[in-house]
Amino acid sequence: MIKITLPDGSIREYQEGVSGIEIAASISEGLARNVLAVKVNGSVWDLTRPITQDASVQLLTWNDDEGKATYWHSSAHLMAEALEALYPGVKLGIGPAIDNGFYYDIDLGDDRTLSQEDFPAIEQKMLELARQKSEFVRKPISKDEAIAYFTEKNDPYKLDLLEGLEDGSITFYTQGNFTDLCRGPHIPNTGFIKAAKLMNVAGAYWRGDEKSKQLTRVYAITFPKQKELTEYLERLEEAKRRDHRKLGKELELFAFSEKVGMGLPLWLPKGTMLRERLEQFMRRAQQKAGYQPVVTPHIGSKELYVTSGHYEKYGADSFQPIKTPNENEEFLLKPMNCPHHCEIYKTRPRSYKELPVRLAEFGTVYRYEQSGELHGLTRVRGFTQDDAHIFCRPDQVKEEFKKVIDLVFYVFRALGFEDYTAQISLRDPENKTKYIGSDDVWEKAERAIIEAAEEKGLRTVTELGEAAFYGPKLDFMVKDALGRKWQLGTIQVDYNLPERFQLEYIGSDNEKHRPVMIHRAPFGSLERFVAVLIEHCGGHFPLWLSPEQVAILPISEKYHDYAQKVLDQLAEQDIRGHVDTRDEKIGRKIRDAEVGKVPYMLIVGEKEQENEIVSVRKHGLGDMGNMRVDAFVDNFKAVLADLLG
Amino acid sequence: MIKITLPDGSIREYQEGVSGIEIAASISEGLARNVLAVKVNGSVWDLTRPITQDASVQLLTWNDDEGKATYWHSSAHLMAEALEALYPGVKLGIGPAIDNGFYYDIDLGDDRTLSQEDFPAIEQKMLELARQKSEFVRKPISKDEAIAYFTEKNDPYKLDLLEGLEDGSITFYTQGNFTDLCRGPHIPNTGFIKAAKLMNVAGAYWRGDEKSKQLTRVYAITFPKQKELTEYLERLEEAKRRDHRKLGKELELFAFSEKVGMGLPLWLPKGTMLRERLEQFMRRAQQKAGYQPVVTPHIGSKELYVTSGHYEKYGADSFQPIKTPNENEEFLLKPMNCPHHCEIYKTRPRSYKELPVRLAEFGTVYRYEQSGELHGLTRVRGFTQDDAHIFCRPDQVKEEFKKVIDLVFYVFRALGFEDYTAQISLRDPENKTKYIGSDDVWEKAERAIIEAAEEKGLRTVTELGEAAFYGPKLDFMVKDALGRKWQLGTIQVDYNLPERFQLEYIGSDNEKHRPVMIHRAPFGSLERFVAVLIEHCGGHFPLWLSPEQVAILPISEKYHDYAQKVLDQLAEQDIRGHVDTRDEKIGRKIRDAEVGKVPYMLIVGEKEQENEIVSVRKHGLGDMGNMRVDAFVDNFKAVLADLLG
Repeated sequence: MIKITLPDGSIREYQEGVSGIEIAASISEGLARNVLAVKVNGSVWDLTRPITQDASVQLLTWNDDEGKATYWHSSAHLMAEALEALYPGVKLGIGPAIDNGFYYDIDLGDDRTLSQEDFPAIEQKMLELARQKSEFVRKPISKDEAIAYFTEKNDPYKLDLLEGLEDGSITFYTQGNFTDLCRGPHIPNTGFIKAAKLMNVAGAYWRGDEKSKQLTRVYAITFPKQKELTEYLERLEEAKRRDHRKLGKELELFAFSEKVGMGLPLWLPKGTMLRERLEQFMRRAQQKAGYQPVVTPHIGSKELYVTSGHYEKYGADSFQPIKTPNENEEFLLKPMNCPHHCEIYKTRPRSYKELPVRLAEFGTVYRYEQSGELHGLTRVRGFTQDDAHIFCRPDQVKEEFKKVIDLVFYVFRALGFEDYTAQISLRDPENKTKYIGSDDVWEKAERAIIEAAEEKGLRTVTELGEAAFYGPKLDFMVKDALGRKWQLGTIQVDYNLPERFQLEYIGSDNEKHRPVMIHRAPFGSLERFVAVLIEHCGGHFPLWLSPEQVAILPISEKYHDYAQKVLDQLAEQDIRGHVDTRDEKIGRKIRDAEVGKVPYMLIVGEKEQENEIVSVRKHGLGDMGNMRVDAFVDNFKAVLADLLG
Repeated sequence: MIKITLPDGSIREYQEGVSGIEIAASISEGLARNVLAVKVNGSVWDLTRPITQDASVQLLTWNDDEGKATYWHSSAHLMAEALEALYPGVKLGIGPAIDNGFYYDIDLGDDRTLSQEDFPAIEQKMLELARQKSEFVRKPISKDEAIAYFTEKNDPYKLDLLEGLEDGSITFYTQGNFTDLCRGPHIPNTGFIKAAKLMNVAGAYWRGDEKSKQLTRVYAITFPKQKELTEYLERLEEAKRRDHRKLGKELELFAFSEKVGMGLPLWLPKGTMLRERLEQFMRRAQQKAGYQPVVTPHIGSKELYVTSGHYEKYGADSFQPIKTPNENEEFLLKPMNCPHHCEIYKTRPRSYKELPVRLAEFGTVYRYEQSGELHGLTRVRGFTQDDAHIFCRPDQVKEEFKKVIDLVFYVFRALGFEDYTAQISLRDPENKTKYIGSDDVWEKAERAIIEAAEEKGLRTVTELGEAAFYGPKLDFMVKDALGRKWQLGTIQVDYNLPERFQLEYIGSDNEKHRPVMIHRAPFGSLERFVAVLIEHCGGHFPLWLSPEQVAILPISEKYHDYAQKVLDQLAEQDIRGHVDTRDEKIGRKIRDAEVGKVPYMLIVGEKEQENEIVSVRKHGLGDMGNMRVDAFVDNFKAVLADLLG
């Protein structure tokens, strides 16, 4: 008998040689039907492989990332089987699982190509083969036998792969009529695959080497239910519609110019107004929370970054130093604002009574990225952080963390992010020497973060060994409307910079002490945040942030004056809008305002002018009836107040 | 008889050989008493020198800059005479007039020095000699005779100067016992000098050459009236008290750190809030005036500045290009925002209907300056322009100019600058080839500027040949509270960048046309503007801009709660303030608030708490009596409204 420890900590005894599927069956029939693979002491195995010793075991289903990966890897074999059936003589490269689905690199020969039109037939064939519920059978094989097999099959790629493998470690997997060189593991049989979709094809050099032959990479995805595929495709479509690069262009928020430089966004007027509102919102929130604004230059002497350690760490890989005409001085584009804020802290002596000092700046920083890595506003070479540094006493860390968490909650709520979690990154307890700062201060700071998160009721996961070498941290992960996760705000404790910059305060004991520094940025980068926000709300910004809150639509030119009067009344109340004075039918005006995602439309014609009212339409909801302008204003302000607390 | 044309255009006939002083006497006795020199066909002459041909003549007095310069140059001779009398054997270098007074470089020999304590005796001697009313007598002299004179006098510096002069062009000037090698001109006699003050001494190498001997440079100033000297010295004292570097430190507005880099200001919290208010003020004013905000990066590809021409013009003398790790790309710190705004203009096709497009940005630019040139906030290496570029049709230039003038008026008024003039800089009509753009557009643009300034009632001077090669411009000169002139706002027409960037719009004729670009910045640079503002108002900022508008001063701890309640009421009305909760006597609290230049102090004690009132003191004015908080708020807002229109 051997002992099997399950994830919940329970231990069960089984016959030596028990398999994953047998353990699943011993727990429940449903689990046995749904289990895809088994994780044994940290490695993923086939469900049928015998377990011969005591082990920790986790049964993997579709809900586990590793379950999905196994499923999609098996699906790659199924697609290969289908391709062999439809394209005899096709040669196969590699076929791994990826984040969403899998691919297979194939060589159809010089006279054949694959295009979108061929996809349905391949999908059909895959499902036809899947319905046969062919088992995935694992077979260890000698290197000679493996070479003989693929030589006969005339597959140069598999032979190339075999060259790098050691005799004794080689396995084949077979399902139906298809055999592949593969380390596994796989799902029990092809019957689990109920829906298949080829996504696209692309060129890919064999082994990623430009000098090798270019193969065809076939991307595809599969699901255990047709409904899941349908939902996935809908989400994909929606993501495309919401792509911030597309919406940014349509809504005229930002642009790029090759002449200015790749990865350097130009904020167009509407985008700038959006940015300014976000900044103003944060500025007010920070002012209430006791932050003090500062402004610092976008360059600093190289010496500054040598002191901070940034030069040693990033110097070689980032924008290179800026020399002066006489060559006596060297400056760097600032990659971070912290060194500048340390120098501001040092402009005068500090007493324990005035701590915490919280210095905030919308600081634009520049970091070099390879041009291939650039992506819209999410990966740029220059971005503005809603940065702040809190200089506090060690005994203030917990209270400051709680205040920052409050601020982050406030920001997320105002922007409609309701689903978020946080990750607490602590020291690796096995390897304490790689961190700077004493055991005592680390323990205090880690406890402070954990308690602050708990007291604020934050859902957290804790990762050991994920702390920076200079201090523990808390990162916020936000789930957007499409279920995608984004890392946004971050809060980090730092013992390193106060040391490097020799920061001090005079304590109540009249002695010099070193303050603790907390880095924090609720948005992270304004550019990235705006990108996430655009995709999260699909361009329908929260009312307070909307570039245009109200469109006033006169039925005809006769009502332009009244429309302007309404606009003036709204402007006095800081409500943004414009009058659509185009010579267009009212239907067209409404349609255009809907497309422009204007939250409210106020239609004015004879009846409205006579009674000094407006006819209100809400975006996506339609007619809300007539009301006086002041009633509309009250209504509007109540909605705002609800959003901004 | 010859014809003499006076500045008012009138022509008078005189005997050939008439002198300036005779012309003055023929006009009025008073003028003859006050005239210092005469300008004949553009050159300044002695008053006694005969005029032998028809000429344009201007009689120069103390009110003319050239009159003052002549006066101070003559005063330098007087000081030299005094020094020779007091320090026999003193050797003399050069002694020119400068902006405020004059200096003389002297060599006292190795065993003598000059210090502050010696100044009064020299001043006394100068006035004693002045009272003799010695005439300045001009005498042409041959080079040999001149060399003989200074050889005998044993003055190596004058001999060195003589070496470079051509025989036949040399003149001596003598007054009293003193003779100097001098081109002139001079005032009639020393009697005009009624007040003299030596300011300081400094070292100065002969001919500015480090390898030559170091002489003693004696700075001094003189006036026709003692009262004018007294006023001048008071203004100097006041300027020292108002020095923005001193006040900037005292009021904790900004700081510099050698580690960040010289000439790169760090804006401290109070200075940042001041900046933010200025920006917000300008943002609102610009929004009303139809500007659209944009944000662009602080770097641009080198290519961008090659296109704009900035690289060719400034490249070698400014911050050098930023290379990337792979060396394939080069960027420059942006010295100007215009190229970025041109690229924004180009992000989509433009129609004549949407012009003018006015793009505004608080754009921080970086320009290298020699470290010796740096000075507080007025000469820095990085500064933020309240920049905007107006892209308009040629027929819109005048209207746009008028709008910008309105905006500048609004800004100056809100900030308390009441005395300003403007300079219109036009083409050199003699040398049209050095300007780009056709005759026709230049004439139109110049006329547009002149008319716009006239229609706005702006006091202007017009300078031919001062236009930039790319277009005419209008610069505003502001006189501050101490009578010093500062060049602030600027408006420039530009035909060059639209050409270089190939900017276009589709006209009503459906053809492509080139827009005109107008650069404008009412503040100029925020840094420089804040410096001027600090010195102009001596740190007593206009109420709307004041970092702290109200200090609430409780008589004792018992009234802290009521004080806080008052503060909350004010905060609700966006009035900035704080409660002074220190354990200090009320007298001390008032004194500190006065020193901190807080515009209003609200004192609260038992009577105030009981009656729900406040006791109001205004900075510099004192007690204004008791009033209810809402009455104070109304009062306060009325003052604000008056300032901001």
